[in-house]
Amino acid sequence: MRKKHQEASATVLLSGGQDSATCLAWALETFSAVRTLGFDYGQRHRIECESAKRLAKRAKVDYHCLKLDFIPQLGKNALTDPNCHITQKENELPSTFVPGRNVFFLSIAATWAYQQGDAHVVTGVCQSDYSGYPDCRQNFVTALQQTLSLALDTPMTLHTPLMQLSKAQSIRLMQDLGKLDWYADTHTCYEGKRPPCQNCPACKLRKKGFDHCGLVDPLDAAPQA
Amino acid sequence: MRKKHQEASATVLLSGGQDSATCLAWALETFSAVRTLGFDYGQRHRIECESAKRLAKRAKVDYHCLKLDFIPQLGKNALTDPNCHITQKENELPSTFVPGRNVFFLSIAATWAYQQGDAHVVTGVCQSDYSGYPDCRQNFVTALQQTLSLALDTPMTLHTPLMQLSKAQSIRLMQDLGKLDWYADTHTCYEGKRPPCQNCPACKLRKKGFDHCGLVDPLDAAPQA
Repeated sequence: MRKKHQEASATVLLSGGQDSATCLAWALETFSAVRTLGFDYGQRHRIECESAKRLAKRAKVDYHCLKLDFIPQLGKNALTDPNCHITQKENELPSTFVPGRNVFFLSIAATWAYQQGDAHVVTGVCQSDYSGYPDCRQNFVTALQQTLSLALDTPMTLHTPLMQLSKAQSIRLMQDLGKLDWYADTHTCYEGKRPPCQNCPACKLRKKGFDHCGLVDPLDAAPQA
Repeated sequence: MRKKHQEASATVLLSGGQDSATCLAWALETFSAVRTLGFDYGQRHRIECESAKRLAKRAKVDYHCLKLDFIPQLGKNALTDPNCHITQKENELPSTFVPGRNVFFLSIAATWAYQQGDAHVVTGVCQSDYSGYPDCRQNFVTALQQTLSLALDTPMTLHTPLMQLSKAQSIRLMQDLGKLDWYADTHTCYEGKRPPCQNCPACKLRKKGFDHCGLVDPLDAAPQA
């Protein structure tokens, strides 16, 4: 099958989560060459980086991890500060919101991609799974794409293949791509547990997606190293 | 005199250069409260940070410096790599161009400002002094302002008081603000020299501005510690 961007290479943001694994599988079907990029930004659970490495190895693509020391310097949030409790109150931004995070991640990824010669960046941000994060919406990504193209003086494209998909739909996309088994290498749990805690908001959202598809999560059947 | 933004506080990006000093003086006349932010990003000349500290002390405002380790990881450029020579060929981006720099600086500054409760950020980027930097143009700043407001889910304003001014005009602005003597504390020279080398493109541009105004640069008369 002819790939949509036969002549182009892309950088995939690989966090080690389920959505980034789906993006990687999608990118391999879409671009002639793919490399992956992750961030170590003081997140509580380094297990995410391990998952990203395993996924890249499985997909036989390069993985590069950039260390971002400045994010914890910007203020408290529940993803980087172990003393900050994960909560979500109605009409409030969740405590896991890291202000500016997707601006930083996507603009650093685009600049890194630009330096490698890639004009395409793929990210798993998803509006339907928005859960209060303003920087997961399409209008934000569109505005940032324009900003980055102006800043770098060359057209950059931010691809968001999962933007309008529900969790169940992105699981089906992965199934169609024939890579469902890759999910065994992903990490989702906010508590950083493997096997997952099954109780945090992230685990619950993941389980709901698989239940909806009538599928068993490959992570549940994976060796729990 | 009533200030234009009587009720608002602002964060000024203070690099220690001439333009950032002018922005600081402008902000003090414009906002009810001002704080300043600088970046240590592995630039060749730490003398810039020292200049920023002196300026903040003189203006009696807080100065905070964030360490950005990731910029040198993104690739070679003449501002962070001592082995990279400063050059400018016609129709090419100058070797001092750090791709993505103003996206990073302004989005990190806006996020830091947001965490402090400021909705205003002041920066000395200047289109007339563009010299090949695509991320110094107004269309870029306008696009980024919209992107940041979407990402943070609250209106953020990026002020660029020098955008359309020539070097001579911004020197006159500083004179009108009664703070010309602050320039003694600024740093401009690409070679990191104090007294300045007077030969690099940055020194030449600075000298041209003062000559045009018929003024002596206070830096030339300053104690050369």
